[in-house]
Amino acid sequence: MKSKQRILGIDPGYGRIGYGVIEGDRNAWVHVAHGCIETNTKADFAERLVELKQDLLAILKKYQPDKAGIEQLFFAKNVTTGMKVSEARGVILLTLHEAGIAVQEVTPLQMKQAIVGYGRAEKAQLQEMIRIQLLLKKRPTPDDAADALGVALTAGLLMKR
Amino acid sequence: MKSKQRILGIDPGYGRIGYGVIEGDRNAWVHVAHGCIETNTKADFAERLVELKQDLLAILKKYQPDKAGIEQLFFAKNVTTGMKVSEARGVILLTLHEAGIAVQEVTPLQMKQAIVGYGRAEKAQLQEMIRIQLLLKKRPTPDDAADALGVALTAGLLMKR
Repeated sequence: MKSKQRILGIDPGYGRIGYGVIEGDRNAWVHVAHGCIETNTKADFAERLVELKQDLLAILKKYQPDKAGIEQLFFAKNVTTGMKVSEARGVILLTLHEAGIAVQEVTPLQMKQAIVGYGRAEKAQLQEMIRIQLLLKKRPTPDDAADALGVALTAGLLMKR
Repeated sequence: MKSKQRILGIDPGYGRIGYGVIEGDRNAWVHVAHGCIETNTKADFAERLVELKQDLLAILKKYQPDKAGIEQLFFAKNVTTGMKVSEARGVILLTLHEAGIAVQEVTPLQMKQAIVGYGRAEKAQLQEMIRIQLLLKKRPTPDDAADALGVALTAGLLMKR
């Protein structure tokens, strides 16, 4: 096993999907990249799923992660949106598994506990701790990409067990 | 355009996925096949999504449908199950779209109205009308496969508009 692991974190969605890539070992991680996949709002939903898969494959090719973390969904206030996000999440799981990448599911609670040490931490605290742990000058933006970095950090910690 | 269309109907799920294939034109359809895809209950969820995709591709290859219908989900009583079914449904939509097959979404209400002519029809009435319309000797089983035939019939009617 390589001593350094590269981990891709994903904040799932169908319109905007956050991703974050970190590299490191044990508890010392460095930032590699972060950003968002955005799918065409004018396209059919099934077409957007294909777009998401292709963009994700491009990210896998570019950053060659060893493992991935993906945020677990909780019940959405808007049921229709929740179902669409789940449909997109299924496509993400499929694409990662087909690429041979082990996937760690991460709950928001696990993320807050792992990064802030406190399960009820606020979003701003979480983002500040992500900034500090990854030695970034500014808090990463947008929120989806910051979340994805948090997912990657948490997946890195959970996978060590 | 061919005068006869072959339509694949799908009742989405992740453990058992019903499918039904019909062929015809306008309002006269004949039964081609029906059955279920079942995924390995002992496998990881992501692995089951890959299995679902591969089995669906085998069905597309075998029956060569022109179009597909897929049942629209409504809010599940069990949220975790509902999210998993949505994740599987995303994989089905992706696979159909990548295969170049137009997809018609079908609600349970549309299905009952199209097949029984009454939106509050019971499951047994629906299955009996599916049997009659497709000239089957017995009601198709299991329920998931019967539902899938109903989805195919409804998609056939809705696509004509």
